[in-house]
Amino acid sequence: MKKHENNMKFQKTKLNEIKRGAKKASYNKSTIYEILDAVEICHIAFIYNGKAFVQPINFGRNEDKIYIHGSKKNRMTNALLEAGEVCLNVMILDAMKLTRSAFHHSVNYRSAMIFGRVKELTDNKDKLIGLKSIINHFVPNRWEHCRKPNEEELMVTKVLEISIETASAKIADTPPNESKNDLDLDFWAGTIPVRTICKYPIPSHFMKDNTEIPEHILHFYNGKKS
Amino acid sequence: MKKHENNMKFQKTKLNEIKRGAKKASYNKSTIYEILDAVEICHIAFIYNGKAFVQPINFGRNEDKIYIHGSKKNRMTNALLEAGEVCLNVMILDAMKLTRSAFHHSVNYRSAMIFGRVKELTDNKDKLIGLKSIINHFVPNRWEHCRKPNEEELMVTKVLEISIETASAKIADTPPNESKNDLDLDFWAGTIPVRTICKYPIPSHFMKDNTEIPEHILHFYNGKKS
Repeated sequence: MKKHENNMKFQKTKLNEIKRGAKKASYNKSTIYEILDAVEICHIAFIYNGKAFVQPINFGRNEDKIYIHGSKKNRMTNALLEAGEVCLNVMILDAMKLTRSAFHHSVNYRSAMIFGRVKELTDNKDKLIGLKSIINHFVPNRWEHCRKPNEEELMVTKVLEISIETASAKIADTPPNESKNDLDLDFWAGTIPVRTICKYPIPSHFMKDNTEIPEHILHFYNGKKS
Repeated sequence: MKKHENNMKFQKTKLNEIKRGAKKASYNKSTIYEILDAVEICHIAFIYNGKAFVQPINFGRNEDKIYIHGSKKNRMTNALLEAGEVCLNVMILDAMKLTRSAFHHSVNYRSAMIFGRVKELTDNKDKLIGLKSIINHFVPNRWEHCRKPNEEELMVTKVLEISIETASAKIADTPPNESKNDLDLDFWAGTIPVRTICKYPIPSHFMKDNTEIPEHILHFYNGKKS
């Protein structure tokens, strides 16, 4: 493998290697980052009092860094800092696949599994980089169209940086798969596509009545409306 | 609290009590089950080699039992059986809330956090109850409109039953929340509603051309189309 290619893929390790459904696996950074960027919420695993927990949270991404934030007392962020490492997942459901047999029912999806090192950002300049990434992941360019956090807000916000060490994607994008023996059975088989969409933006009731919806919001909406 | 009411709520324990955002918390079984039933995919936490992992998976529910299934060698199901307990989460994103300050950006959502005991179902009769629940969670009434699993299919499928011991929901369903000091800033604030919808069902290319889409599929589609 050339050095250039090497930089564009995650190495397979014990952590990220996909053993079942290996045909669906991808270790390409671009594929994995595209899945991350298409989703608002990730699910994060952590250990607390010896038990495994999972919690949903929004996030941002710059290259191979993921940012999350929370209040100072947040149980999850404290547990992650203690562990120093994290596993998180994002999952996009693209279709439900119905087959004549119960057994072959399945889904099309894009899932990304991320393994990384965790550290807290304590310098305000670094925290702002993380928070900008989170806000611009929320709606692209939003950071330029809102008031930036002040000293007091920064002080009560904990910002964690996750350095992605390894990762994998799993993508299913195929028609329903049935055994030949079932094809004559008189049951319906097919695909029901699933999409996450946005409805038209609703101005806050504190806004003046005829305020135009700005370009960055319309651009976001137009990309998600169906 | 009357006995009847008691049966309709989960007791608050160290595991499920929501401390931050307590106003958004609910311990009502009906609220929690409604969120579970509205979602196809849950995220499950487990410990493997001392690390916390999270994985997405589909599931079914009957009363206070959740069912998941996987292949015999699945790492997650084996880890859950070893732990004997599980934490899982489902999250529905309902809206993105944009405020004049970066700090107050947030989302409306419905999230359910489940804590339960895990056991493997080994009797075929029990496994079929679990698989029926999973298939009917996928599309209601689907079980009656497909071929049931045969002996061989049952043999290669591991079915886990999760008995819900405690749980909580967290629901945010409010307009954007801003500090008064920001209201004169010339930034747009408002809500962008988010929905998960289905597109029209696409018959498998193995189906005869003019096969009608059956009632249970149309019913499911009509409830999800927008």
